[in-house]
Amino acid sequence: PGKKVLIVYAHQEPKSFNGSLLKIAVEELTKQGCSVTVSDLYAMQFEPRATRNDIVGPLHNSEAFNYGVETWEAYKRGGLSKDLVEEQKKVQEADLLIFQFPLFWFNMPAILKGWMDRVLVQGFAYDLSKAYDGGLLQDKLSLFSFTTGGSKEKYAIRGDIRYLLWPMQHGIMHFCGVKVLEPHICYAPEHASEEKRKEMLTAWTQRLKTLWKEEPIDCSPEWYFK
Amino acid sequence: PGKKVLIVYAHQEPKSFNGSLLKIAVEELTKQGCSVTVSDLYAMQFEPRATRNDIVGPLHNSEAFNYGVETWEAYKRGGLSKDLVEEQKKVQEADLLIFQFPLFWFNMPAILKGWMDRVLVQGFAYDLSKAYDGGLLQDKLSLFSFTTGGSKEKYAIRGDIRYLLWPMQHGIMHFCGVKVLEPHICYAPEHASEEKRKEMLTAWTQRLKTLWKEEPIDCSPEWYFK
Repeated sequence: PGKKVLIVYAHQEPKSFNGSLLKIAVEELTKQGCSVTVSDLYAMQFEPRATRNDIVGPLHNSEAFNYGVETWEAYKRGGLSKDLVEEQKKVQEADLLIFQFPLFWFNMPAILKGWMDRVLVQGFAYDLSKAYDGGLLQDKLSLFSFTTGGSKEKYAIRGDIRYLLWPMQHGIMHFCGVKVLEPHICYAPEHASEEKRKEMLTAWTQRLKTLWKEEPIDCSPEWYFK
Repeated sequence: PGKKVLIVYAHQEPKSFNGSLLKIAVEELTKQGCSVTVSDLYAMQFEPRATRNDIVGPLHNSEAFNYGVETWEAYKRGGLSKDLVEEQKKVQEADLLIFQFPLFWFNMPAILKGWMDRVLVQGFAYDLSKAYDGGLLQDKLSLFSFTTGGSKEKYAIRGDIRYLLWPMQHGIMHFCGVKVLEPHICYAPEHASEEKRKEMLTAWTQRLKTLWKEEPIDCSPEWYFK
């Protein structure tokens, strides 16, 4: 109770299974007394492209545009574009970040990757030698909640689904100093029976009830690759 | 000679190190007699978001928007948006796909992920039970060529850089039936001496000279995780 949650949501359709998972999270966490904010990326028409438009005013070096350097400098002087500043404020205030999305190509949809690329800039999320356990977004939790197209069995055939979590959980969240809870994966809801879909939704509600008691995973290669 | 190459390029600045790598690839491959096409994603202002705009005309199911189903149906009836049709034509004609980009968060920049999400739709790149070695984009090669921010040593500390290639090379290219050449990685060119940068550019030219003699990697979990 009193915890702040930011849900970054990347699905085009409110009636989708992802939409139902979002709705459940908002309702259940609100019921617990949490303050919940949703960044509905498609509805916001969130810009995924990392361009010069992200910097307000003159560039640090207008001879050759370097996105990393320019956003770092702009962050320091308060010169990032308004949409980024708003998202950073939401992140700063949150105790827990939930990413809700359908897996596209073993990864986040581009619109969500764009949120990572543009919001988590140097100076805000990490800095020189302030990364991983020393990352700047300390004392926060994250949770990747996603649906897949293929069945659990299909994913298991060629290695473990955890393999694809490495760049997201370790390469992004852990790099920024954010702790990572077990991912929540709903396999192939589109091909599941109505009963099975209901079971998956109930399982998400149940998990959320005891979420704050969970321990983060250990962010080592062993967790991912055994 | 006579081979067709598509370079999908994701950097904002022609004067960047990525820009130099692109220029080298265009020049060297053209010199070999290859026909080279470049998709310069930032210059094209390529749309990374997967939305209803990708489907021309009425939807298959307008009650609840499902991007995967809608683009599949649209592909079959020739109803994908013009920008996607153009990219698919380039892919179809190519013998080799080169992806040239700076690594952003252990992954492709969002604009390039959006190219994957939107161009490689069901029916075109894969189909029901036509995936991996049976994927629809047979007899093509791919090569991920990218720069990193951190040094080789930094990447090695927490596991192998190959871990992050799994979703890109295996999850996308291998899934579509495209063979994968060894990635080409330039570590931390921004922090390298002018001499070291020149060496890296020369190494790329040299590699391209014998590229067509290379054997694809074996696309097994063992290659990635040992």
